[in-house]
Amino acid sequence: MIQVAVLGYGTVGSGVVEVIEKNKAEINKKSGEALNIKYILDLRDFPGDPYENKVVHDVNVIMDDPEVKIICETMGGLKPAYDFTKRALMSGKSVCTSNKELVAAHGPELIRIAHENKCNYLFEASVGGGIPIIRPLNYSLTAEKIDAITGILNGTTNYILSKMEKEGADFAEVLKEAQEKGYAERNPEADVEGYDACRKIAILSSLMCGKNVKYEDIYTEGITKITATDFVYAHAMGKTIKLLAQSKEADGKFYAMVAPFLIGRDHPLYMVNDVFNAVCVHGNMLGDSMYYGKGAGKLPTASAVVSDVVDCARHLGKVIMCFWDDTDVALTGIEEAKRSFFVRVSGDKEKEAIAAFERVRVVEADVPGEFAFVTDVMTEKEFNEKAEKIGIISRIRIEE
Amino acid sequence: MIQVAVLGYGTVGSGVVEVIEKNKAEINKKSGEALNIKYILDLRDFPGDPYENKVVHDVNVIMDDPEVKIICETMGGLKPAYDFTKRALMSGKSVCTSNKELVAAHGPELIRIAHENKCNYLFEASVGGGIPIIRPLNYSLTAEKIDAITGILNGTTNYILSKMEKEGADFAEVLKEAQEKGYAERNPEADVEGYDACRKIAILSSLMCGKNVKYEDIYTEGITKITATDFVYAHAMGKTIKLLAQSKEADGKFYAMVAPFLIGRDHPLYMVNDVFNAVCVHGNMLGDSMYYGKGAGKLPTASAVVSDVVDCARHLGKVIMCFWDDTDVALTGIEEAKRSFFVRVSGDKEKEAIAAFERVRVVEADVPGEFAFVTDVMTEKEFNEKAEKIGIISRIRIEE
Repeated sequence: MIQVAVLGYGTVGSGVVEVIEKNKAEINKKSGEALNIKYILDLRDFPGDPYENKVVHDVNVIMDDPEVKIICETMGGLKPAYDFTKRALMSGKSVCTSNKELVAAHGPELIRIAHENKCNYLFEASVGGGIPIIRPLNYSLTAEKIDAITGILNGTTNYILSKMEKEGADFAEVLKEAQEKGYAERNPEADVEGYDACRKIAILSSLMCGKNVKYEDIYTEGITKITATDFVYAHAMGKTIKLLAQSKEADGKFYAMVAPFLIGRDHPLYMVNDVFNAVCVHGNMLGDSMYYGKGAGKLPTASAVVSDVVDCARHLGKVIMCFWDDTDVALTGIEEAKRSFFVRVSGDKEKEAIAAFERVRVVEADVPGEFAFVTDVMTEKEFNEKAEKIGIISRIRIEE
Repeated sequence: MIQVAVLGYGTVGSGVVEVIEKNKAEINKKSGEALNIKYILDLRDFPGDPYENKVVHDVNVIMDDPEVKIICETMGGLKPAYDFTKRALMSGKSVCTSNKELVAAHGPELIRIAHENKCNYLFEASVGGGIPIIRPLNYSLTAEKIDAITGILNGTTNYILSKMEKEGADFAEVLKEAQEKGYAERNPEADVEGYDACRKIAILSSLMCGKNVKYEDIYTEGITKITATDFVYAHAMGKTIKLLAQSKEADGKFYAMVAPFLIGRDHPLYMVNDVFNAVCVHGNMLGDSMYYGKGAGKLPTASAVVSDVVDCARHLGKVIMCFWDDTDVALTGIEEAKRSFFVRVSGDKEKEAIAAFERVRVVEADVPGEFAFVTDVMTEKEFNEKAEKIGIISRIRIEE
């Protein structure tokens, strides 16, 4: 019997307990030994809950119990999760987490501490909810040099954009509806400004290069400025708008960013709608592969945490491969990244646009009082210089 | 240094050598120790090839060399691959293969022999080419009870169907073109009759339930009867036609089949075009997840073989989890499977169709001299009885 503790009995934590109970037969078979939830740490009591008697309020009970081998950290946030995790790892207890903030902020340190203590710090649930993506990167694509990762990593913004597209509605309206339905938080900033996707792509980028990509260094732009009119144009171009998180390595330069992009119908991410997430990985031998599924939600996220628990159970006392050291990667500023841009200007400025951009592809759509076009491929820097000359309403990057 | 031998220096075998050479740095880092190709077994000589001096014609050289720890079996076919694999495993050498025929025919026996000899028989490349799907099933979805797998598992047929859809061309015409381009074999039977997909879904189904699903028991129907007219109707319904390989477990019954299906725009497999493959896995906690990528080709397939080599290198002397025992699964006949059907009848037989099927949804398309409709959901058996009453041109199953 392997004793497990769960820190935080909220949505994901209670999901972990539910998954371990419901799929007991499958999970114990794969773990090689039965798992048992010995403690649940929470400040609250849960009278009437079937696991009521497992709830403890003092973390020391868990930390000081040598029987506990695996801890699920489903508290979220940096404090006190960081301290609890460090303490657990230092005493040789493996930690499985859904906490992307903590992984993005302290991943390499916590992995190092785990390995020094012959245990593991696993975080499959921190990116893409239940979609297996961390493990495929670490164990499956081992024969590849991965040079690009592009993902739809935030379900809330993807739901909002999908809804805006379908209904022709504006951002504020759809956000309000999403909040009423519980698909968006009261304070939606972390999602709609791209901060959540930024932490997730920082984690994936770090695993891609084996070094540390700091989330603070990643250029991040949210979806708050995307309008119903942008979707009118997108539709006219046979494209849609998605919040993409991406990182690319080319010619020794490493780019990472989060921003809304126009993508076409033949892009594998085009069909990823509503709360679904997906990650495209490009390797030098395999080309593109994609991983798709529910990026959030109680049971999908809990399923990923429990898959880490199974992995830890099978590797008690052994280190599971994970290359993410604490050397920081120097990201190249996105000013040097090259792409084409979709641009809207007010009035009939075709001449001015051509004067500034030399060559443009006009986008025809039924939007009065505007002129819209797609530029040639150029650096962000060049684009900004040219755009400044004519004054624009807005621009959206195009992902080829 | 870990010594590796490659059996068969054809497309995949030479790809394995190329991948190990090109991505040496990444692969050796992940293996924990450098890999070295010590032998390549082939009947032919390869004068001028950079690996010329590694080529041997006698398999005993490899089998009798205790330094060789890992063997890549990229010969294909049952003979002599089966004997070579057994012999290697019995002497404690791990075997990594792309040989789906052999895995489908003798998987559980070879896995058992491997585990008895503290080595491994891995076959990531046998399904979906370079798409990580075996490893996600075995190591990632460990907290799930998987109840359905549906895949596009054959690139040739998917290329043909995609082409037929795009160009409104007929099967024979597109097949000829595909053969000229090298996308289809001279003898295309294994692909177009669904036999290749059948072996692959047998492997996935076996891993899904941990028991043995015999490929001979799987109902298999190819794409040779699909016509350009079928795509006219599919288009009118907002659907496309894909060769799906699927298995489902429900109420203690286990179904598996390969056949062309109509699928709608919101199905994740709808966008899988050309030579791409994809596998949808449904778990009871996670819901749907999908794995997408190049299902064939020299380097993608070789990349999957080499990822298995890395896994073996990290687990020398240790058994890697794989549940597939040799208890045969009794499949339920597809006569009991329930779905709706798209049906074409000649002439204006609306009345007869309603008389036979009670209720039908008429499909309007510009096809003279025919009447076409979609039935309610019913078992295959019921459908066949009703269809016999009116005499039909053809039917295609509908995947919801």
